[in-house]
Amino acid sequence: MITDSQIEAWLREDLGHHDVTNDVPGETEGRLVAKEAGVVAGLDAATAVFAYLGCEIADAATDGTRIDEGETVLVVEGPAREVLRGERVAVNVTGHASGIATRTRAAVDAAREVDPDVAIAATRKTTPGLRGIEKRAVAAGGGDTHRLDLSHMVMIKDNHVAELGLEEAVSRLRERTSFATQIEVEVESPGDAERAAEAGADIVLLDNLAPKEVATGVDLVGDEALTEASGGITIADVPAYAETGVDVISMGSLTHSAPALDYSFRTG
Amino acid sequence: MITDSQIEAWLREDLGHHDVTNDVPGETEGRLVAKEAGVVAGLDAATAVFAYLGCEIADAATDGTRIDEGETVLVVEGPAREVLRGERVAVNVTGHASGIATRTRAAVDAAREVDPDVAIAATRKTTPGLRGIEKRAVAAGGGDTHRLDLSHMVMIKDNHVAELGLEEAVSRLRERTSFATQIEVEVESPGDAERAAEAGADIVLLDNLAPKEVATGVDLVGDEALTEASGGITIADVPAYAETGVDVISMGSLTHSAPALDYSFRTG
Amino acid sequence: MITDSQIEAWLREDLGHHDVTNDVPGETEGRLVAKEAGVVAGLDAATAVFAYLGCEIADAATDGTRIDEGETVLVVEGPAREVLRGERVAVNVTGHASGIATRTRAAVDAAREVDPDVAIAATRKTTPGLRGIEKRAVAAGGGDTHRLDLSHMVMIKDNHVAELGLEEAVSRLRERTSFATQIEVEVESPGDAERAAEAGADIVLLDNLAPKEVATGVDLVGDEALTEASGGITIADVPAYAETGVDVISMGSLTHSAPALDYSFRTG
Amino acid sequence: MITDSQIEAWLREDLGHHDVTNDVPGETEGRLVAKEAGVVAGLDAATAVFAYLGCEIADAATDGTRIDEGETVLVVEGPAREVLRGERVAVNVTGHASGIATRTRAAVDAAREVDPDVAIAATRKTTPGLRGIEKRAVAAGGGDTHRLDLSHMVMIKDNHVAELGLEEAVSRLRERTSFATQIEVEVESPGDAERAAEAGADIVLLDNLAPKEVATGVDLVGDEALTEASGGITIADVPAYAETGVDVISMGSLTHSAPALDYSFRTG
Amino acid sequence: MITDSQIEAWLREDLGHHDVTNDVPGETEGRLVAKEAGVVAGLDAATAVFAYLGCEIADAATDGTRIDEGETVLVVEGPAREVLRGERVAVNVTGHASGIATRTRAAVDAAREVDPDVAIAATRKTTPGLRGIEKRAVAAGGGDTHRLDLSHMVMIKDNHVAELGLEEAVSRLRERTSFATQIEVEVESPGDAERAAEAGADIVLLDNLAPKEVATGVDLVGDEALTEASGGITIADVPAYAETGVDVISMGSLTHSAPALDYSFRTG
Amino acid sequence: MITDSQIEAWLREDLGHHDVTNDVPGETEGRLVAKEAGVVAGLDAATAVFAYLGCEIADAATDGTRIDEGETVLVVEGPAREVLRGERVAVNVTGHASGIATRTRAAVDAAREVDPDVAIAATRKTTPGLRGIEKRAVAAGGGDTHRLDLSHMVMIKDNHVAELGLEEAVSRLRERTSFATQIEVEVESPGDAERAAEAGADIVLLDNLAPKEVATGVDLVGDEALTEASGGITIADVPAYAETGVDVISMGSLTHSAPALDYSFRTG
Repeated sequence: MITDSQIEAWLREDLGHHDVTNDVPGETEGRLVAKEAGVVAGLDAATAVFAYLGCEIADAATDGTRIDEGETVLVVEGPAREVLRGERVAVNVTGHASGIATRTRAAVDAAREVDPDVAIAATRKTTPGLRGIEKRAVAAGGGDTHRLDLSHMVMIKDNHVAELGLEEAVSRLRERTSFATQIEVEVESPGDAERAAEAGADIVLLDNLAPKEVATGVDLVGDEALTEASGGITIADVPAYAETGVDVISMGSLTHSAPALDYSFRTG
Repeated sequence: MITDSQIEAWLREDLGHHDVTNDVPGETEGRLVAKEAGVVAGLDAATAVFAYLGCEIADAATDGTRIDEGETVLVVEGPAREVLRGERVAVNVTGHASGIATRTRAAVDAAREVDPDVAIAATRKTTPGLRGIEKRAVAAGGGDTHRLDLSHMVMIKDNHVAELGLEEAVSRLRERTSFATQIEVEVESPGDAERAAEAGADIVLLDNLAPKEVATGVDLVGDEALTEASGGITIADVPAYAETGVDVISMGSLTHSAPALDYSFRTG
Repeated sequence: MITDSQIEAWLREDLGHHDVTNDVPGETEGRLVAKEAGVVAGLDAATAVFAYLGCEIADAATDGTRIDEGETVLVVEGPAREVLRGERVAVNVTGHASGIATRTRAAVDAAREVDPDVAIAATRKTTPGLRGIEKRAVAAGGGDTHRLDLSHMVMIKDNHVAELGLEEAVSRLRERTSFATQIEVEVESPGDAERAAEAGADIVLLDNLAPKEVATGVDLVGDEALTEASGGITIADVPAYAETGVDVISMGSLTHSAPALDYSFRTG
Repeated sequence: MITDSQIEAWLREDLGHHDVTNDVPGETEGRLVAKEAGVVAGLDAATAVFAYLGCEIADAATDGTRIDEGETVLVVEGPAREVLRGERVAVNVTGHASGIATRTRAAVDAAREVDPDVAIAATRKTTPGLRGIEKRAVAAGGGDTHRLDLSHMVMIKDNHVAELGLEEAVSRLRERTSFATQIEVEVESPGDAERAAEAGADIVLLDNLAPKEVATGVDLVGDEALTEASGGITIADVPAYAETGVDVISMGSLTHSAPALDYSFRTG
Repeated sequence: MITDSQIEAWLREDLGHHDVTNDVPGETEGRLVAKEAGVVAGLDAATAVFAYLGCEIADAATDGTRIDEGETVLVVEGPAREVLRGERVAVNVTGHASGIATRTRAAVDAAREVDPDVAIAATRKTTPGLRGIEKRAVAAGGGDTHRLDLSHMVMIKDNHVAELGLEEAVSRLRERTSFATQIEVEVESPGDAERAAEAGADIVLLDNLAPKEVATGVDLVGDEALTEASGGITIADVPAYAETGVDVISMGSLTHSAPALDYSFRTG
Repeated sequence: MITDSQIEAWLREDLGHHDVTNDVPGETEGRLVAKEAGVVAGLDAATAVFAYLGCEIADAATDGTRIDEGETVLVVEGPAREVLRGERVAVNVTGHASGIATRTRAAVDAAREVDPDVAIAATRKTTPGLRGIEKRAVAAGGGDTHRLDLSHMVMIKDNHVAELGLEEAVSRLRERTSFATQIEVEVESPGDAERAAEAGADIVLLDNLAPKEVATGVDLVGDEALTEASGGITIADVPAYAETGVDVISMGSLTHSAPALDYSFRTG
């Protein structure tokens, strides 16, 4: 959900106390146009910005659509002053989200060349304040949203294991966890992957391992648990990991390092 | 300023209603460590996150410092549960801001090889909700923050010119603008740059022009106004633009497309 | 997480613009004392209220503890004016949360007489604004928090089934759902429970069925999925449902109809 | 007043970052239907929830109406996705408020059998965040809202009396209190009730006294002040207290322990 | 109560995204010093501003104190950057509140020359966002805070009377009003004042009447109700109204037109 | 920008939890009428108040218009309950802003008798929470908004000069300041004014100097910088300062001490 208070904060930080530039009379139409090909996302946010300003959305593309350079993804109508005041914020949020969707799509396409099923997933490495928008942009690009917040899935890491041992850690956390919440265990060797699966993990995360080791881990885990690979994986690395048979490849860079997709906003 | 309500929104979106994973007893120390070289920024935000959670900052680097792989930039102490709950948000915001500072530094360094004075400036193409953090990250990287919001400086664009003519647009907006606020005029040819300067623009923005045209515009404007070049300029393009004698080179990519700087967070 | 803005709203609605009653000088100590036996919960919220007002927590019980009449669960010290201003809000939130924990405990105890494992779970029928506090109160009472929000687990209901058919609905939503998110299907007959499990549901919800039908459904589902019973189940009904072998018994009344646990606040 | 920021918080806590379940196309109609008889309240809040989501209210009952099982109290129309996203929050708030109105109505009816005038009043023992909604629900049930916040009326309690003496406490606080604000004095014996009235209290609160003692206190106070009885009074106790001639009977349980009224939400 | 979110809004609107001026190192002490004589108020707000910024209050005067030119009312210590950033906001809020207290004091002093008891009261004509601060400033100046908000007291005006008739309006609203809430009736003639009192008004407001008419109204009302005079009354008019025997003289100008008291802030 | 959360805070502080007075049925029209001549401002805020309450604006004057006693500046239509609930807040904010615009207009008119160009400017001495509204009210009165926030312009004061010396202070801050941001230097003698201009100040502020000294300073500065005079300047002082040739006369009293313009609100 895009909340009004978020929109308000975005507009407030861009407008300041006395915007003379855009204090113009009359009505206008604004069009958000892609300046390069990609996958569109973030239109719910752009729409909410203009709605907050009292403008009407005349037309809008659907998040997840592949677009070419020159395509219009949003048409808005309203008082020129309000349309112009929403412009920069709308372009910024759509460009940011579409950049994420576009990079996710590229990673998914790279995986599909090798494996029809492996999921390309985002992480919790999102930009503060934009968790929902970025996760939905990943979905728009064909990716998997993964853990939405800390309460969505339990993640057992080295600090838990160091304190309790792997099996005991899984057992203790299972006891405290709702049936509605899965438990993932992060491991750093194929052998620990097998132990984690046997201890009852729903998902085993093979962290910072080479594709060959991931493949070994996936074999050892078998059907006991889902498997996930992560740790600095780039789009170029995706095919090699996809070939391991792992269920999920997760990449922080989908959200924290995707360049914005370039849009222009045309009025009149 | 990083406000408590911003911190609250960042933590809320990452925690959810019942975080079982980090519900651990005891006190701990956490260290934010760079996994690659770069320029640090965003520590005011990371510090504010841990302060909101009732943790103590034991040590912190200064924004703008060049750091090497392996350097610690923040040490925090407090209840393990709170330190762990702040971890992801702190890493995300510092990585994001440091990525911007690092890219800005690279652009400034590229400019300095050619010209000791030309400013490398950010734009209003920032991530919604993070205007202040990103602008300060640009400053930390040695860049110029440029227009902070719409009320900071008036920008006369083609829609004003189309309606009123260039000279009349400058005259009308000067009348409505405080002495405290400068007026910049966006032009798309060297000749219009000269006209804008003569009409009284404080700054003339040469948009989407090749370095050669920018150089012509800069010569025509002379001392009548500051000059700025913008429009899809990459770091590779910076030296060519710097050689034109332009006063400011602005790049939206500093804020909207800088990859995050990689940090890890180590506890115990 | 209890946010400052929540605390602020609670205090603001209780104080008004000019509180003459509590405008008293000096320091005082306040003690939150149970007036009846039960299970304590909500102390994180009460603690946050006094912290917001600049008071110190001298002692606090642990959420989930069974307490007797007369037991002190929180001791706070600070300026008399602030302690008195926090009193009513602190009592209200602790009484509310402890009432939920106490009722949950009673339901869990009723279930334990019959079955050592069946989970007693809350629902999304919580008091607006208090989702997290109520879910954690359920956990404090030994219950299962169940679905924390709509994004935590997918729930396929009759409207999905009517439109797509049960199998297709499961298949479509599985495709759109992260590996991190489970899918539950709500059914109204034992036969549909079996179909849902075969279609790939992670959990099958047997809604508004008598214990006998639930037992049939549980048998038909077997190990294919977890099973949950719900629909107006009271504490008196719990043993009968627990005997069906169902994995989870969920009760909206745990959160929406538990009477407050009675506390008094004593100062000086 | 139901504020947008309250609605936003309620929806945010229930939706999370990526609600797949309700992401359905098309328009729908939703009807809020009572599953048991009672008194409706909270419809202003339910209406505000759907308005925030951009839905239209086609029909709505009036708060305070007695309804039977099966009656529709609200009809809403809009995009299916938005109607479904508002459903749970709307049911929760209406069920909560109607539960309070229904219990209040029962207490008022019990009093009316004995006395045509005695007021049944709520207290400040409300659920944090819902003061206004609960007080208005009490009014919808025929009850008296009593003190809305600490600034609404001055309450002199034992700590004031211990420090200053009863007469001096009344005198001091009268001096500091606006003419617009009444002063109530809490006493624990009939004799002190008389003293409080003579000292100038507008209202005398007979706290934790048996009906017989309340009757004595009411006689002693006479026309000098209004009288109120409180302290663990249940609906079964109401007639006995009503017979004492006291002006007001206040009950914290109206707001902190009323079970929710059961509603279902039907779409399509 | 001064809330953190209020402080945050005040600071945010004054700081902007990149304050270079006050980005200075080291610690400092700041003193808020009166530049003219008056009555101090608003120090709770100034204190809260510096507390939000992490500064310590070393000394503070008490609201309501008469101060001379040159007196220090607040001493704050902390990081120079934070002290300087709080300065302007602290001066603005203290100057505003002290201006109100000072003018109220002058009005009260004018009344006291004639009558020892008549109350000088503020109205709801306050500056949006500052209701509580302004009402408490009136109290600091010796004034009466009057109706704090619409829920504090019922006011029957000409629109109610036109619809229902005066007696019926009082009767209807009495029925719907809590015993905790008084009813005031606004009248425009002495005769209506008498009718209002007989109809059961707690307070009768004689609006826009000359002192002579007010005196007549006061006589007619006698002990049946309190009496209040209002309507463009200036400090020069106060003695004439005070002589009428009216209980309360209310003046909107206390809050909406009091000039600020002049303070300077000295550091180092 | 007037944000919804501001409107919400204004209405919340005025309504309280249970407003019985204005709980009236039906639709009505409300008219905001000037009770004295002046310059209207703040209508964007009044409009936003009624829009938040779901009312329609039927007609509205333009901020900056000179109005006579009896003129209607706003006509609003909607449910009587909502129109009445917005009334007080709308009158308060319009009266406050119009008071500022009216006083600014008077100061500008006083200046114009002597000099056709000198700017009459506001300062940062605004009422907390109302910076934008007050600055725009100054513009509506023909004044100059001056520095909108700390990030808008750098101000070098005595503490900078004491630490670094005037020339070094200007040089250091110029280095850290964006080309988009001007630098003003506050001086207390004509000689320092000249030094500041030579050091590169964009604007020189002659603080607390008599007109004669200001005139000397203006001459010494010449065309090197803009000049501003400030320090307790009243409207009566304006002509004398205007004659000095100074570019800007700034007056804190425009915003912190202007009496409200008197409006009434008529319904039905």
